[in-house]
Amino acid sequence: MLTSPALQLSGERLQARYALAAPESEAQALATTICYEQTVEFPAHLVPAGDIRDEIVGRIESVEPQEGERCVVEISYAMETAGQELTQLLNLLFGNSSLKPGIRLIGLTLPEAILRHYPGPSFGVEGLRQLVDVWDRPLLCTGLKPMGLSISQLAELAYTFAAGGIDLVKDDHGLANQPFSPFESRVEQVAAAIAQANRDTGRRCLYVPNVTAAADAIEERLRFAKQAGAGGVMLAPGLVGLDTVRRVASDDSLGLPIISHPALQGSFVVGRDNGISHGVLFGTLARLAGVDASIFPNHGGRFAFGVDDCQALAEACAAPLGQLRPIFPVPAGGMRLERVPQMRTFYGADVIFLIGGDLHGRGVDLAEACREFHHLLA
Amino acid sequence: MLTSPALQLSGERLQARYALAAPESEAQALATTICYEQTVEFPAHLVPAGDIRDEIVGRIESVEPQEGERCVVEISYAMETAGQELTQLLNLLFGNSSLKPGIRLIGLTLPEAILRHYPGPSFGVEGLRQLVDVWDRPLLCTGLKPMGLSISQLAELAYTFAAGGIDLVKDDHGLANQPFSPFESRVEQVAAAIAQANRDTGRRCLYVPNVTAAADAIEERLRFAKQAGAGGVMLAPGLVGLDTVRRVASDDSLGLPIISHPALQGSFVVGRDNGISHGVLFGTLARLAGVDASIFPNHGGRFAFGVDDCQALAEACAAPLGQLRPIFPVPAGGMRLERVPQMRTFYGADVIFLIGGDLHGRGVDLAEACREFHHLLA
Repeated sequence: MLTSPALQLSGERLQARYALAAPESEAQALATTICYEQTVEFPAHLVPAGDIRDEIVGRIESVEPQEGERCVVEISYAMETAGQELTQLLNLLFGNSSLKPGIRLIGLTLPEAILRHYPGPSFGVEGLRQLVDVWDRPLLCTGLKPMGLSISQLAELAYTFAAGGIDLVKDDHGLANQPFSPFESRVEQVAAAIAQANRDTGRRCLYVPNVTAAADAIEERLRFAKQAGAGGVMLAPGLVGLDTVRRVASDDSLGLPIISHPALQGSFVVGRDNGISHGVLFGTLARLAGVDASIFPNHGGRFAFGVDDCQALAEACAAPLGQLRPIFPVPAGGMRLERVPQMRTFYGADVIFLIGGDLHGRGVDLAEACREFHHLLA
Repeated sequence: MLTSPALQLSGERLQARYALAAPESEAQALATTICYEQTVEFPAHLVPAGDIRDEIVGRIESVEPQEGERCVVEISYAMETAGQELTQLLNLLFGNSSLKPGIRLIGLTLPEAILRHYPGPSFGVEGLRQLVDVWDRPLLCTGLKPMGLSISQLAELAYTFAAGGIDLVKDDHGLANQPFSPFESRVEQVAAAIAQANRDTGRRCLYVPNVTAAADAIEERLRFAKQAGAGGVMLAPGLVGLDTVRRVASDDSLGLPIISHPALQGSFVVGRDNGISHGVLFGTLARLAGVDASIFPNHGGRFAFGVDDCQALAEACAAPLGQLRPIFPVPAGGMRLERVPQMRTFYGADVIFLIGGDLHGRGVDLAEACREFHHLLA
């Protein structure tokens, strides 16, 4: 028979909120399984009495019935169970429960004792504004695409965008290190083109290359990008792992803001009864990892994010989270210039608008399309 | 107006299969959006004629109507668009489309020219069998739990398991580097206990510590585990990123098999209309990343995997995949000893049975429970 040692825990706990696709009559039982699944992963009747049963096993703090036979439950965990690592924090919050339908992680509250291990975004809203020296309006972003253009074509596009008043020019997230778009020459030539545009205009457009890459290639690409004059870097947490983003963000010698791209993370949010909420995934967790601006598909575009999802996401980018800086939401995904005024009202001033394809399709030359984009917010 | 350069592509293409929650009348249009979304991410009418439109944009190879207003489509992509990196391959297969409901990645076929960049599992079924010197039956695995036990309790459990005939003893995936279970002393003492058991029995039980950790800590834990005498390592691709697993697997100086744990990956599979199929995620992609044994929740346990899901997963572990070795499926998740004979029939001989909690709950001492487990297959 196993016995529980005295664990000398601090008593501090973190809170997770889960939406359950279950009526109130079943919610307590389902919440109880989460308490065990996420911690001891052991049959309840065999869990040793004492600190393991009383402190390590998750604790149901509340069960709130919702409309439509659903409930929201809050479960707390001893902060020590999360270790001091984002990987184990994620595992504790949702590791095994991700494998069960009808459970969605929709909120978390972390004590200072945990938050202090997460310095978070190095730049955030204010730091990014400082880099581009724009204080009174949303920032403008566009992407270099389509995949398959030559490096000199991409560099030419980049010059046009930067000269036309775009604040951040990023690689399309499909540009990695393909034979038709090798990373180093792309980054070198595009960075040079944007630097030239900045000299010509006196503005401070940032080039944000995509450094999403093999685990053993990221460091080299970061160094190369920095040395070539990149003004930020883009990483897709769904492709490289969220903690890899945190590692990059915590590297003071890099000193570049991080833009996150949602590739492959959609599976966490699109199933309404499962996964992780938009606000937690693209807001709270992105900030914990040190993301400075979080790209996501805006409502009403090519994707299926709803108005409420986008609202919650934007709120999570700005909500109090210990000492962590607020970050920019970056609505994207088939946005057209016509929508900018409405998006401005919806998101307020601290937002980055990412418009790609539409700049090419306005029946005017690209420079003129950029000026239109810029004028919409000037 | 953008023009397409001549891209000098090889003409070799990779195939992806998607299940669409759409009737045949809508499938062609939806498949077309996937072709663009996964590659150029650009309005179709603006994509430059020539190689970009003809070769880079995905190509619909077939549309097969299914029962229940569904379709399966096959789309091919120029192999060059995947680069030579798992991160970009994942992005190409499902990056943006993960953000749209009603699209599920259910299959992929890679040309040799891509597969040669993925050496895959270093051990696989045969290599793991060699390590434990067991050739004629499924392997037995159990976990060290519950979280909160002292290191000496875990070491004592480990000795009992190893002496009782278990082939692989792994850390519970919730054991990371917590104050109550610091990684280094845990690995040292558990490895020593299992080494002692092996000396006492003449068998070759492997200790598989959990090295899922912060991106900047994994390397150190791997080295420590190796030096302490670990016989394998466990990584959760959902927590560290699939390509981090690939990097570990490709490190010849480590020389330890990799067991993957499905924590946080559930959100890809539980929504039937979205995400990635069980076989692709836990079979094909795991093998590409070099996993030697893939843990997943068996049907009929605490989780919601179906019989067909598990069948497809096991098949993907063994199916031809270039030169990549077949790997062990590791059904788990609340399995009881009583189910072992049925699981043996279902999975055949090349399987690892992972039974945790039930060994503790049989009303006999643990050593006896291990012998029961062992006798079921001997």
